[in-house]
Amino acid sequence: MDFVIRTESGPSIGPSVAEILESHVSGSGSPTRTARSVADAIEARGDDGTWLSTVPREQLLAAAAELESRPGARGLPLYGVPFGVKDSIDVAGVPTTLSCPDYAYIAEHTAPAVQRLLDAGALYVGKTNLDQFATGLNGTRTPYTIPRSVYGNEMISGGSSSGSALAVALGQVPFAVATDTAGSGRVPAALNGVVGYKPSRGLISTVGLVPACKSLDCITMMAGCIDDVDRVMAVMAGRDDDDPWSRSPGPAFAGGPVRVGLPPVAELEFFGDDAMRAAHLAFRNRLAHGGFPVDVEFHEVSMAPFFAAGELLYAGPWVAERLVVFGEFLAEHPDSIHPVVREILRSGEKYSAVDAFAALQALQELRAEVGRLWRDMDVLVVPTIGRTFTVDEVFHQPIEANTMLGHYTHFGNLLDLLGVAVPQGHTADGRPHSAMFLGNALSDDTVLQLAAALLDEPRASAAAETSDLHSERLVP
Amino acid sequence: MDFVIRTESGPSIGPSVAEILESHVSGSGSPTRTARSVADAIEARGDDGTWLSTVPREQLLAAAAELESRPGARGLPLYGVPFGVKDSIDVAGVPTTLSCPDYAYIAEHTAPAVQRLLDAGALYVGKTNLDQFATGLNGTRTPYTIPRSVYGNEMISGGSSSGSALAVALGQVPFAVATDTAGSGRVPAALNGVVGYKPSRGLISTVGLVPACKSLDCITMMAGCIDDVDRVMAVMAGRDDDDPWSRSPGPAFAGGPVRVGLPPVAELEFFGDDAMRAAHLAFRNRLAHGGFPVDVEFHEVSMAPFFAAGELLYAGPWVAERLVVFGEFLAEHPDSIHPVVREILRSGEKYSAVDAFAALQALQELRAEVGRLWRDMDVLVVPTIGRTFTVDEVFHQPIEANTMLGHYTHFGNLLDLLGVAVPQGHTADGRPHSAMFLGNALSDDTVLQLAAALLDEPRASAAAETSDLHSERLVP
Repeated sequence: MDFVIRTESGPSIGPSVAEILESHVSGSGSPTRTARSVADAIEARGDDGTWLSTVPREQLLAAAAELESRPGARGLPLYGVPFGVKDSIDVAGVPTTLSCPDYAYIAEHTAPAVQRLLDAGALYVGKTNLDQFATGLNGTRTPYTIPRSVYGNEMISGGSSSGSALAVALGQVPFAVATDTAGSGRVPAALNGVVGYKPSRGLISTVGLVPACKSLDCITMMAGCIDDVDRVMAVMAGRDDDDPWSRSPGPAFAGGPVRVGLPPVAELEFFGDDAMRAAHLAFRNRLAHGGFPVDVEFHEVSMAPFFAAGELLYAGPWVAERLVVFGEFLAEHPDSIHPVVREILRSGEKYSAVDAFAALQALQELRAEVGRLWRDMDVLVVPTIGRTFTVDEVFHQPIEANTMLGHYTHFGNLLDLLGVAVPQGHTADGRPHSAMFLGNALSDDTVLQLAAALLDEPRASAAAETSDLHSERLVP
Repeated sequence: MDFVIRTESGPSIGPSVAEILESHVSGSGSPTRTARSVADAIEARGDDGTWLSTVPREQLLAAAAELESRPGARGLPLYGVPFGVKDSIDVAGVPTTLSCPDYAYIAEHTAPAVQRLLDAGALYVGKTNLDQFATGLNGTRTPYTIPRSVYGNEMISGGSSSGSALAVALGQVPFAVATDTAGSGRVPAALNGVVGYKPSRGLISTVGLVPACKSLDCITMMAGCIDDVDRVMAVMAGRDDDDPWSRSPGPAFAGGPVRVGLPPVAELEFFGDDAMRAAHLAFRNRLAHGGFPVDVEFHEVSMAPFFAAGELLYAGPWVAERLVVFGEFLAEHPDSIHPVVREILRSGEKYSAVDAFAALQALQELRAEVGRLWRDMDVLVVPTIGRTFTVDEVFHQPIEANTMLGHYTHFGNLLDLLGVAVPQGHTADGRPHSAMFLGNALSDDTVLQLAAALLDEPRASAAAETSDLHSERLVP
């Protein structure tokens, strides 16, 4: 499998997990050849802000060769499949920087979620860039090279999982591990034309992830298609008693019409980006006309309680939760922190416990209200982002731009939703449009079923059939 | 049905709900005769700190007479059954004082939980005393008459639902509505020899209850037996969209052996009360010898994570949640607040949002740990209180005594448990011993099944058969 690099005209997603596996198992490719391709592709880009560290070429090739020679490895579900890891997640022996050189440390243990990938034969390539401390949705809050979207024109990459989105959009790896607390996995997916999947809280262990807001953090993934999401989830997901939020997956898609909630158009906010509005309405029009492998019923659903929860997040006390981890570092090394991130962290110091409990009570009201909406709805469909920004635009209004970017994602984890950002067409001026499919916690399989249908991907119900698929596909 | 009043030698529980109903339906008694009995009994005691307000005698008799003449009322599940309500819960037209005269207001609406009782034919008698703002477990924090336990010798009544426990223990009403945030429903039950049932969070609507810690508050009940608990719950429980914590009951008792967790004796704390220790060990001995209508299996279970959660509550930021409701009053009318309650409320001001989120994270760890314990255990059995106190002892160490009283109850709502305090024998010097049966959220029916077995009460599985029982029993 060779990787093709294109210039800034949108994503050039490489071969899928299934394609790589097929080539490795059939002999038309091999883990070492794939590894070489990956190293070449990364080297060819130079430092574009995607990676903060990579496994040296010789070491990567050696790991691939070891895999090839290991008895039984060929049957592993991710045999020789390369992947990147957001640099807020530990890989033993490698620095975890969080885009803050003075905070960085060499990890002693590999996060269980990453270890599961390694145990499944996946090939660790390196650590990807992020907004410092995973605090930001735009990709500019890094002391390293500031990445740009694959769509060029100085468009931001989105963040905080900027590098993970880019590594997939550039075709360097078929998937990358990311995180998503308030949109960090979905926003950069939207800006780079890839799939960004934030599973239900607790399906993937967050042990070994340096927390942003620990009660809200999810480990997530960037991928090129839903089939890759399914294959990676089949490996990464699993109960972990060391993650107190850990839980088991929900039921498989039960078939029958998917009840899709659509907000009234008047409630949708594009922050003046009329081209994005037009692209989203065109997508809704396509959705309404059906013809997918899944039957769909539509319901109008107000966004009011969702947006109210989002406002609690970005204008409320949850920012203080970041100080549980970073408070000491902020006090001792304020100058080591990116100025915008420092300002945000400091804003957490002004909230009292009374503020926190009042906000938690308000959130419980909204959770109950939204909980009732799910009685009549399986999937809520909204834009992933209302508009795009250039790097300069973000520099001029760092907080405001971020708030706009999180308009449709801020509320997700507070309301215990899952979400998948799916590329769906473009604006007239060639920017990416991304639709977001949201579901109530543990309805992942239903949401992914609809996402796959919109992407014209055939898909069995993954939760029910993953193991069968693997055993069939991986026989040489 | 006449009510007998005894002096301070322990509870003199009056006729049960079933007995009162039977008398009303058979004609051997009547709602007006019962109402007169209640009024006589309360009048005979004088102001002993049980009631803060009562329905005037003529008005109570008129309500009973109205009920008697109302077509169909005789078939109601609580036809003419008198009850009291803790004075932190609204009854329209009546002052809600929270034991703070300057805070008091006339309620405009009746709390739905109380309205359900009225709609079921129950006869509202009055409001019962409490520790001010439901802040306390001892019963002394009231500007009104400080009640004493029915066991005499200046023993505290326990709190905060002091009056509700007494009204039942004195045989004035067969049940009373109480609340329980950190033990307020179970501790006074233990000190007065009655059943104190704190259902799973959300089974009874808390609308119309002035919150103590809103995220933890439960409406609960005091009763003389489990059959009365079942009958009252069948009426009071119900989903309420206006209570964001509302949820539906769990499954009925499935039969088979109940897996009972018992802490190692070395982990039990009686705070120097050797007679209470002996009473509890005698109870455990009885439990171990079985011979109940329910099969029981025993497991040793460490209390460590439960006590750790309790410590989060009494030495952590949750006290700040009380200020969400009372903060303004504290700021504007500090002299209107009981000195000990004021000191406690003020301690909530020192916690930051960072403290709150750190404690919530710690709690999540403990919830996960305790959650795993319930895989092998249905009911955890502990003492309700480790020792008793006199009023003077509480005056001398108001905070310390309270902490000791909550040793086995503080953790319950934080860990989303249900609990029922059940009188089980006495100390050698004639004080009440109470066993507490704790279950994981929504396992109410299993826990009540074991409690009933220990009280030698025959009991069908209430969740499965309540409606049948009612329709059979209430045919005249």
